Amino acid sequence: MKKIVLLGASGSIGTQTIDVISHHLDEFELVAFSVGYNIENARELIKQFPLVKVISVANENDANELRKEFPYLTIHFGDKGLIELAKLNNYDTFVSAIVGFRGLEPVLEAIKHCKVVALANKESLVTGGTLVKNACKEYGVALYPIDSEHSAIFQCLQGNSMKEVDKIIVTASGGSFRDKTREELVNVTKQEALNHPNWKMGGRITIDSATMCNKAFEVIEAHYLFDIPFDKIDVLIHKESVVHSMVQYRDHSIIAQIGSADMRIPIQYALSYPNRLQMFNDKPFDFTNFPELHFTKPDFKRFPLLEMAYIVGKKGGNLGAIMNGADEEAVSLFLDDKIKFLDIEDFVIEAINTIPFIAEPTLQELIDTDHLSREFVRNKFVEKQ
Amino acid sequence: MKKIVLLGASGSIGTQTIDVISHHLDEFELVAFSVGYNIENARELIKQFPLVKVISVANENDANELRKEFPYLTIHFGDKGLIELAKLNNYDTFVSAIVGFRGLEPVLEAIKHCKVVALANKESLVTGGTLVKNACKEYGVALYPIDSEHSAIFQCLQGNSMKEVDKIIVTASGGSFRDKTREELVNVTKQEALNHPNWKMGGRITIDSATMCNKAFEVIEAHYLFDIPFDKIDVLIHKESVVHSMVQYRDHSIIAQIGSADMRIPIQYALSYPNRLQMFNDKPFDFTNFPELHFTKPDFKRFPLLEMAYIVGKKGGNLGAIMNGADEEAVSLFLDDKIKFLDIEDFVIEAINTIPFIAEPTLQELIDTDHLSREFVRNKFVEKQ
Repeated sequence: MKKIVLLGASGSIGTQTIDVISHHLDEFELVAFSVGYNIENARELIKQFPLVKVISVANENDANELRKEFPYLTIHFGDKGLIELAKLNNYDTFVSAIVGFRGLEPVLEAIKHCKVVALANKESLVTGGTLVKNACKEYGVALYPIDSEHSAIFQCLQGNSMKEVDKIIVTASGGSFRDKTREELVNVTKQEALNHPNWKMGGRITIDSATMCNKAFEVIEAHYLFDIPFDKIDVLIHKESVVHSMVQYRDHSIIAQIGSADMRIPIQYALSYPNRLQMFNDKPFDFTNFPELHFTKPDFKRFPLLEMAYIVGKKGGNLGAIMNGADEEAVSLFLDDKIKFLDIEDFVIEAINTIPFIAEPTLQELIDTDHLSREFVRNKFVEKQ
Repeated sequence: MKKIVLLGASGSIGTQTIDVISHHLDEFELVAFSVGYNIENARELIKQFPLVKVISVANENDANELRKEFPYLTIHFGDKGLIELAKLNNYDTFVSAIVGFRGLEPVLEAIKHCKVVALANKESLVTGGTLVKNACKEYGVALYPIDSEHSAIFQCLQGNSMKEVDKIIVTASGGSFRDKTREELVNVTKQEALNHPNWKMGGRITIDSATMCNKAFEVIEAHYLFDIPFDKIDVLIHKESVVHSMVQYRDHSIIAQIGSADMRIPIQYALSYPNRLQMFNDKPFDFTNFPELHFTKPDFKRFPLLEMAYIVGKKGGNLGAIMNGADEEAVSLFLDDKIKFLDIEDFVIEAINTIPFIAEPTLQELIDTDHLSREFVRNKFVEKQ
């Protein structure tokens, strides 16, 4: 029985993690979880999983209210609450399914407590990849990916050796605007951007998908997860999102992972690894629904943030934190209808070119960088008014 | 250093095996080989591989001639010569790259001598699958596939457990006539049939590809190689022959193997397993050359021999030997311009329905069945004149 702490239980990955756990109660036990502001969902989960003894919510008022209702529970709140969950002793696997830079500290804490980490929060690696990898080495901790692309790569690596890998091929849907030229992007709306053709996901990741900033982050994430240099990571646009990613070996054999756009497959694999459990409540992938699969190389001029992945990734330091902080803030402004779609790219690239570089940042310096980047973007927005 | 005995060195798989060995002389050493009638090729190989001490050729006259030229070599001939090579002691891996039922006895002999078997000769398993598998169990011998489809499946199984496999998906190009209706097949010529769109292969396998009898045999081969029931083996037409086959797991994840139509990849993997060596003298697969991949379900009415795989395979016994013997003879008659393309299917199916069934045939009964089936087809041809 694997005991699980889940951060971000009410989000897109979180609810699917709950689904996986609840279909395999003989394998997994939820012992603690966090939600943000969805207190109703917290109530449901408390009732659904009576073995949960500790939870965390976003704000103190909600925590106080829940404490009255569930006096036998320990209820934390805020970013510190997430760290408290990571510090618990009575669990095996830490599932980080929250979005954003705030995921970094709890992950580091879970690693220091020698827990297996199942990672959906890509920002931990984009911003603090070196810190996370060093901590994993120091504490002998395994990191399993939940992102569909990285899970695919992880699956394609099984039974093979990293020294035999020639290349990792990360597939990309190309996002909501993949068929538009840059000129056509000038006046696209939030609603259009949120209409992702293949996946139903959270707001930020859907926008990041349209700018391909998400793919840029995945390239950086792959570099850290698999200890592979950036010149061995390719991106391939594959609009059907059926081939989730591939590994090309030195004998020119390519191993690919294929499946429906169902995040429960990578979530379940991260939890059950190295085994595969039965998938319930879903039909197997059927090629008759996808008689044609398409593959094209991405154009860096069309997707400048994708090119930034290689520049930012190779230089390292606090550049990942700058890129992520600026993007988080810019996407948030875009989702609030305050800036235009193409402003996201401009603001992110300007932040990367402006904010002071730190070669070997500490956690505190990454936190400071994150604040600086967000402030930079907010200032750019004000200037533009 | 792996010492290799190669049967069928001058054929399509054989010459590519020679290519793989000669690019990895630090890994592999050729110690014995057979050719059929291509004595010139035998001479070249003798010069290229001075450590070879034993060879075998098809007929006695050629053997005598070569004995004069190379008195320091042991030179066998005929089907018995192949068995002599299998019986050698000074080698590790037995590569069977000959075509046809004659491959069965040498493979059984190599297994009895506890050699690793790398198998391109699918007829061994189609006709004598039970004998081969029982011998492998008895002598603790591993069988590695060289067929591109089975190598793909083998690669996709690495790092996973057979009990987690839901289905094996064998891809099929559909052969030279995949876009023709049955009506259009009535008067197709040998030249048209030999013009395979994706692969350059030997004559028989190219014709078997057009009737999909080859795919039928691969279904039976997969059953024995991977100990998997027939209702867990699917065939999917994929005309580009880029995805060489797949494995669908119970968590609905599908692992696929992708690559160029270069048989050296599966040959090299069978020789180097569990490692992957550098592939020389070839470019890696490039998706920009294959921007669209297509997948469709095969129609059993269009390809009746494919349906026979499941009937023959499930019933077992000597049916595989009947199907293969009849097909070998019918294809040979077709290649001699003696029968029409659709006669191949008719003769094979009639042989299966006519020749006496033996539930648990011995090797001798399989040999007798093979003779009976060939005779049956020759008689059908004479009747038709």
